[in-house]
Amino acid sequence: MTAATHRLTDLNAMPEAAFVAALGAVFEHAPWVAGGAAARRPFATVQALADAMRATVEAAPEAARHALLAGHPELAGAAARAGAMAAASVAEQAAAGLSRLSEAEHARFAALNAAYRARFGLPFILCVRRHGRASILRSFEARLAADPERERHTALEEVFRIAALRLAGLVAGEGPLAVAGRISTHVLDTMRGAPAAGVAVELHEVVSATETVPVARAETNADGRTDAPLIGGRPVPAATYELRFGLGDYHRRLGVALPEIPFLDIVPLRFGVADPEGHYHVPLVATPWSYQTYRGS
Amino acid sequence: MTAATHRLTDLNAMPEAAFVAALGAVFEHAPWVAGGAAARRPFATVQALADAMRATVEAAPEAARHALLAGHPELAGAAARAGAMAAASVAEQAAAGLSRLSEAEHARFAALNAAYRARFGLPFILCVRRHGRASILRSFEARLAADPERERHTALEEVFRIAALRLAGLVAGEGPLAVAGRISTHVLDTMRGAPAAGVAVELHEVVSATETVPVARAETNADGRTDAPLIGGRPVPAATYELRFGLGDYHRRLGVALPEIPFLDIVPLRFGVADPEGHYHVPLVATPWSYQTYRGS
Amino acid sequence: MTAATHRLTDLNAMPEAAFVAALGAVFEHAPWVAGGAAARRPFATVQALADAMRATVEAAPEAARHALLAGHPELAGAAARAGAMAAASVAEQAAAGLSRLSEAEHARFAALNAAYRARFGLPFILCVRRHGRASILRSFEARLAADPERERHTALEEVFRIAALRLAGLVAGEGPLAVAGRISTHVLDTMRGAPAAGVAVELHEVVSATETVPVARAETNADGRTDAPLIGGRPVPAATYELRFGLGDYHRRLGVALPEIPFLDIVPLRFGVADPEGHYHVPLVATPWSYQTYRGS
Amino acid sequence: MTAATHRLTDLNAMPEAAFVAALGAVFEHAPWVAGGAAARRPFATVQALADAMRATVEAAPEAARHALLAGHPELAGAAARAGAMAAASVAEQAAAGLSRLSEAEHARFAALNAAYRARFGLPFILCVRRHGRASILRSFEARLAADPERERHTALEEVFRIAALRLAGLVAGEGPLAVAGRISTHVLDTMRGAPAAGVAVELHEVVSATETVPVARAETNADGRTDAPLIGGRPVPAATYELRFGLGDYHRRLGVALPEIPFLDIVPLRFGVADPEGHYHVPLVATPWSYQTYRGS
Repeated sequence: MTAATHRLTDLNAMPEAAFVAALGAVFEHAPWVAGGAAARRPFATVQALADAMRATVEAAPEAARHALLAGHPELAGAAARAGAMAAASVAEQAAAGLSRLSEAEHARFAALNAAYRARFGLPFILCVRRHGRASILRSFEARLAADPERERHTALEEVFRIAALRLAGLVAGEGPLAVAGRISTHVLDTMRGAPAAGVAVELHEVVSATETVPVARAETNADGRTDAPLIGGRPVPAATYELRFGLGDYHRRLGVALPEIPFLDIVPLRFGVADPEGHYHVPLVATPWSYQTYRGS
Repeated sequence: MTAATHRLTDLNAMPEAAFVAALGAVFEHAPWVAGGAAARRPFATVQALADAMRATVEAAPEAARHALLAGHPELAGAAARAGAMAAASVAEQAAAGLSRLSEAEHARFAALNAAYRARFGLPFILCVRRHGRASILRSFEARLAADPERERHTALEEVFRIAALRLAGLVAGEGPLAVAGRISTHVLDTMRGAPAAGVAVELHEVVSATETVPVARAETNADGRTDAPLIGGRPVPAATYELRFGLGDYHRRLGVALPEIPFLDIVPLRFGVADPEGHYHVPLVATPWSYQTYRGS
Repeated sequence: MTAATHRLTDLNAMPEAAFVAALGAVFEHAPWVAGGAAARRPFATVQALADAMRATVEAAPEAARHALLAGHPELAGAAARAGAMAAASVAEQAAAGLSRLSEAEHARFAALNAAYRARFGLPFILCVRRHGRASILRSFEARLAADPERERHTALEEVFRIAALRLAGLVAGEGPLAVAGRISTHVLDTMRGAPAAGVAVELHEVVSATETVPVARAETNADGRTDAPLIGGRPVPAATYELRFGLGDYHRRLGVALPEIPFLDIVPLRFGVADPEGHYHVPLVATPWSYQTYRGS
Repeated sequence: MTAATHRLTDLNAMPEAAFVAALGAVFEHAPWVAGGAAARRPFATVQALADAMRATVEAAPEAARHALLAGHPELAGAAARAGAMAAASVAEQAAAGLSRLSEAEHARFAALNAAYRARFGLPFILCVRRHGRASILRSFEARLAADPERERHTALEEVFRIAALRLAGLVAGEGPLAVAGRISTHVLDTMRGAPAAGVAVELHEVVSATETVPVARAETNADGRTDAPLIGGRPVPAATYELRFGLGDYHRRLGVALPEIPFLDIVPLRFGVADPEGHYHVPLVATPWSYQTYRGS
């Protein structure tokens, strides 16, 4: 998450026009939401600000809420390709890999977008920063089959999720929004009874049976942990991940006698993240001949 | 290993010509080795027969031994491409994947074969049934750098290994040759305290950072084991392997409540085999939220 | 279990009187049960013989079944102290530790026996070879509270269990009775990736928070197992057990550098057996700094 | 460790006499050590103060150092029984269990004290807060066999350890002395993939094959940890310990179906502490049918 642009105390003290200028883009093409919140200042916490924006939307006439939903761009849709999308949406869709789709994938999104609009009369809205690529498609298909009343509710909740993430990136203050999950690890060497330092760790997203995409890379410190979480300070996109540990190199550096092809060399731990705001602590407890993992805390 | 063609008791009783016809191909283009062993009959065990063939080679004049080495085909070499290789060698090289090389790989083998012949005046000989593809290339490069005296010894040992495997496939009798290794597994469900039955298991050879080749597929039985080892009755080619367990499906069938993206779904265990005649028992001890493995027995 | 005295084929061929002499004591003070079974010979399996004895009891008049129950001795009761108990019962009660009770324990059994007889008009019958001492008392108290109809059924099932165990000890033949459970172990050294040989193993029954009683002692062989199960060929008395492994001595013999007080020295694994006919495989997977166990198979 | 009595900044500013009154008892019957350190004020850290006291001892004439050693009381010796020991020593020996010895144990200490004094002409000095009872006796016997020169050095180091602990208890300030170790735990429930809350944990010292002494008792919190280490803020006496976890009760409360005698009920983890200043993190990773531990961090 990039450094926040505004301090909550400053926002509380600004003229209304400046406040709306600062936060008008939190809800896509709907600066009136910031305007409604401006009247409820001051806010003690960022969460209170978020709640006020949500309350503004919920108190608005149905037509305004419809326009809010209708104003969102499609995923990987025409607006994106035509360069007509709001800046925040451009960045969000790019981070989810939607700006690098193959033609076949574009065609699939186009078909899904068309089907969704035909069925619900609205663009499909999803907080893509909470999803891996496979998870976006799974959600899309599941929601296409939903009851319209319920789907409208779901879409609005996604708008609030998008807004919360934008707000968390824009405003610093008491009480950070609970929008961040975490993937962390810890390597224990049970041959020596000590943390394993200097182990290379890679995190990959598993996008299909044969394809993975690198996400992060680190090395364990003296306590066997990485200095920072492999993903932290933002939602963990719902997806399958693989941690890869350079265990063979670690043992070689310690001078442990290993076979020419070591029993354990690169150790992959494959696990799924279903809760983007969850903490996934995935330790590796290992010797040259054994290892284990579990969801820790 | 295919069913043996001959019984040791029959071989002991045959006329010498029939004996040589039966076993003449055990040493490539060298039926004289079978001839020498024929005179030492009867044999109580297949190992005694193998020892007699080895003794025949070791007692032969140096020129005969040189001709024996010189008579072997190159790996993925001109003889193979021209269809001029002995039947046993054809099958052995094919099983090691050498009949399906890309042009680039062919070029690499051609260069190595040429360098080896230039340095040692002989074809490169390796018992390929004991090696995965990466291991063949690693051996090739290591042996290219060896001292000629020592390399000559290594080559002859490889000839004996090739012969032992051919003999084990041809002759049934007391005392099977110790030419077979094993990969086996066992799945324990420690959420229920019982073996995990009905778990799909796949064994793959890892041929590069991004490519794996399926080797075997099975399902665990009521005891949590596969009915037969995943590799057994033959050497385990030295290589890196990956076992993949359908743990998510197993838990779903039991009715365990799992997240939409389960923490554990397909569980990969990646391990190396350095000893083709070793027993690699690689169990999976698991719950929906943890697993471990070790080299067992 | 001691070597069986009779072969089933011999029993099938004996005169009836000899058959009754051989098996008359299987049901306490009730040789008529053997007599009834004699008429149904021959038996293909020991189980068929056991079934015939059971059928004889079930077909007998109610008064005969009542007499059968009434003819059993109390546990740790007057008959035992007066030396008036059948030989088989003497041995069975002794094995369960009932011949070595303190005066306080005797008083407790006397009170329970009296309460049971007052409530049900019969002695309390339990197949004590299936229970540890705490489990005997727990069963006694639970059954004192049972409905008389149901308790009568329970008592008769215990008579059949006692008879099955006596029969299994007396008769050898096809189809052994399913009366035996097992406690076994396996020690894996995951620092070296091999079975741990030469590890001293003790099995204790935990009879109270502070008292344990040694049950068996063994040493692991080259495969990391004991040559025979620690308990096998008989029911495992329902109780809490503790396996103790001399892990520190094992590592010292291997020359592993350990602290003056090793992190792991005697490793206790404490576990409960609720099913006397169950197989309890309790492995130890260990390094000098870690261990684990699970109910295996 | 009790709350410190003095702040380092105050000690730096005191008149010398007050300084010596405050710290005179840090070295047994040797206020001159505090006097020597007074002249080196001010101290930036408690460690600098400890170093100054040590330097004072090391710079003193040999006779003064001899008197310092000679002024220490014997362990469980005549001074202790006669009530003639310095207050700090009384508390230290009591905490190590030396005030509750049986007559036989007293006799053993008396014999060791006499032998030591005969051999070295000094009382045996040991920082008993760093040792369990068995470890005290082991040290005593080992040092009785030492070379006098080396033993004199060892005794002085023990004096410095005693002083460091007294100082840590008396003075608060920057840079706490590294005199504390820690025993902590963490319970993970891998059946549910979450920390195990509400698990009763007991820590016992194992003083002989049949005797344990309770040391601490706690319950795991929502993160599966105890709110405070089981031992912390002081050296962990070198000894064998047993952690006992009420795992059966935990699973019963969750409504997990368990056998009448659960496979796992009270789970003991037995481990040794050789380094009193070490951090011993001993987690329990468990299901109703499996568990493991390791020295963590």
